[in-house]
Amino acid sequence: MVPIMADNDCRATLIEVATPLFAEKGFNGVSVREIAGLAGVNVSMISYYFGGKEGLYGAVLNEQFAVLQRVAKIAHTATDPLKKFELYVRDTVARYRRNPYLLRFYAGELTNPTPCFATIVKPAIQEVVKTLQEFFTDGLSHHQFREGLEPTDTALALAGMINFYFLLEPATGELVDHSPERDEELIRHIMDIFANGVLK
Amino acid sequence: MVPIMADNDCRATLIEVATPLFAEKGFNGVSVREIAGLAGVNVSMISYYFGGKEGLYGAVLNEQFAVLQRVAKIAHTATDPLKKFELYVRDTVARYRRNPYLLRFYAGELTNPTPCFATIVKPAIQEVVKTLQEFFTDGLSHHQFREGLEPTDTALALAGMINFYFLLEPATGELVDHSPERDEELIRHIMDIFANGVLK
Repeated sequence: MVPIMADNDCRATLIEVATPLFAEKGFNGVSVREIAGLAGVNVSMISYYFGGKEGLYGAVLNEQFAVLQRVAKIAHTATDPLKKFELYVRDTVARYRRNPYLLRFYAGELTNPTPCFATIVKPAIQEVVKTLQEFFTDGLSHHQFREGLEPTDTALALAGMINFYFLLEPATGELVDHSPERDEELIRHIMDIFANGVLK
Repeated sequence: MVPIMADNDCRATLIEVATPLFAEKGFNGVSVREIAGLAGVNVSMISYYFGGKEGLYGAVLNEQFAVLQRVAKIAHTATDPLKKFELYVRDTVARYRRNPYLLRFYAGELTNPTPCFATIVKPAIQEVVKTLQEFFTDGLSHHQFREGLEPTDTALALAGMINFYFLLEPATGELVDHSPERDEELIRHIMDIFANGVLK
C-alpha cells in the first residue's frame, strides 16, 4: 500500500501547489518547472500523473468546480422552493469563504476561456443554473411565485446578487463590511429582496 | 495644426490596438513590440506618448472605465429613485453591448489586480456603488422603499443582477437567449423583481 499512498501524495501535492499559481498567473503564466520546483518533485512527475501542464490545469479546475455539484443536492434537502434558493445562497457564501481561488478561476474562465472552459467550467455552471431553474419552476407549479417571471432570468438574477457581492469585494470593501461575521445578515438581506421580488 | 492631429492619431491608434491585446492576454501577456508592430509605429512612440507599457495600459483602462462616469449623471435625468435604478440597468446593458472588452478588464482587475486597480478601477466602481446607494437613500427618505434594507447591499444586489447576466453569458448562452433583441425584456424582468423586492 505504501507506493500507492506516496502516489496519491505526489499527485495531491502537485494540485495543491499548482492551484494558487494558476489562479494568480493564469494558465500561460505558469511553467511546469515552477510547479515541480515548489512541489519538490521531478518535473517528469507532471507528465506521469497528468500527461502535462494542460492535464494538471484540468485537474485543478475539476477540483475547483466540483464544489458546484453540491448545489444539485439541495433539491433533496428541502421541500419549499424558497428555502432551496436560500440554501443555494448559503452554499455559495460557504463556497467562496472556504475556497479563496474559486472566484479567480470562475471569472478568468468566463472572460478568457481555456480549452477547459467547454469541458469543465461550462457544464458545471449550466448544472447550477438548471438546478435553480427547476427550483423556480417547482415554486411556480405550487403557485408560490408570481406568474410572468422567466425561470432562467430569475435564476441568474439570484445567482448574480450573491456572486457579484464576492466579485466586487476588492472594490467595495470600504463601502460595506465584507467580513464573514456579516454573512448571515447578507444572506437574510438578499433573500428578503428576492422573496419579496418573486413571491405571489 | 497638422502635427497635433497626427499626434492624436498615433496616440489613439496605440490605445485602439492595445485594448483587445491587453483584454485577451492580460498586462503581462503583451509586449510593447507587439503593440507597436500592429499599430504600425515605432516602438519608441509608446514611451513618447505613455511613458511605457504601464502608461499605455493605464490609458486603456482609463478609457474603458470612463464610461462608468455616465452613471453619476443619471441622478440629474430622473426624479423617481426607481426610475434612476432602471436607467442604471439600461445604461449597464448599453455599456456592455457597446464595449466588448469592458467585462474582461472589469473581471480581470477584480480578481488579478494590476497597480491600475487602486488608481483607476476601484475609484470608478466605488463611484457607481455610491451613486446607487444615494438613489436608494433618496427613495427611503421619500418612503418609497421598505425600511430595514441596507443601501449598499441593495445597490450591490441590483448591480449583481445585471452585471452577472453578462459575465455568465459564455456559460448560459444555450439556456437563455442573450441576444440584444431580448435586452428590453431582460431590463423589464430585472426591474420587476427588484421593484417588488424593495418597494413598500
